[in-house]
Amino acid sequence: MREKTAPNAPPTGILETVIYAVDLDAAEAFYADVLAMKPFSKLAGRQLFYRCGDQVLLIFNPQATVVPPPADAKLPVPPHGATGEGHVCFRASRDEIDAWKQRLEGAGVTIEADFVWPSGGRSIYFRDPAGNCLEFAEPKIWGLS
Amino acid sequence: MREKTAPNAPPTGILETVIYAVDLDAAEAFYADVLAMKPFSKLAGRQLFYRCGDQVLLIFNPQATVVPPPADAKLPVPPHGATGEGHVCFRASRDEIDAWKQRLEGAGVTIEADFVWPSGGRSIYFRDPAGNCLEFAEPKIWGLS
Repeated sequence: MREKTAPNAPPTGILETVIYAVDLDAAEAFYADVLAMKPFSKLAGRQLFYRCGDQVLLIFNPQATVVPPPADAKLPVPPHGATGEGHVCFRASRDEIDAWKQRLEGAGVTIEADFVWPSGGRSIYFRDPAGNCLEFAEPKIWGLS
Repeated sequence: MREKTAPNAPPTGILETVIYAVDLDAAEAFYADVLAMKPFSKLAGRQLFYRCGDQVLLIFNPQATVVPPPADAKLPVPPHGATGEGHVCFRASRDEIDAWKQRLEGAGVTIEADFVWPSGGRSIYFRDPAGNCLEFAEPKIWGLS
């Protein structure tokens, strides 16, 4: 039986958002050429790290990160790794979404969906080379500014 | 051949961070009891939505979200869904990490790793019921404040 501990406040924010791609070269080219995102750190075959606003977006090769650290590792980062099509949404204003749609289509990227939510706010969806479902959306779809 | 489009600015921030859990009841109980996170929206068997700082954390059942929308869907949200152990990191100060470790251990949650990075900043790691690798870390591990 779990006990609730005090003080009972939730986490204050997210520092790392993670998606996975086996072909990191294809991912790096796509995020650079299409989304103008350049990694501030990378390790061939394992990871691409990007700053995005006040946090980071980490793209890992799950075939590398599912391997547990050695028993004597100084930095025993736990294993993780998912397969399938993940999802991440970037924030954008309505005008920025117009600009992104133009940039994506100009780069030959298919816009998989483009609609306005019933409560207001627009989303556009597309894929990265690994099949991850990427989105640009207005923060107001979540009541955020 | 992809063409680069102007203006060539990257996304300004992340709006939605996504992880997956087949057993959403177990996830909801864990995030509420251990992390004090209460969903502002949920749909049984499909999704749990949480606010976290200036964005949202979405937990989806991949068995539901991999199903494509009907051809006549008014909101044709593209399918996505991953299996395996995802990863997300919450931001916390050094003092908050001390408090979280106490809360987690008090709730019977195993701390899988707890270390200081060579360039400074501490991380602690644990798992949610779906096996997702959760972390609390100081923003300075990424040079963020």
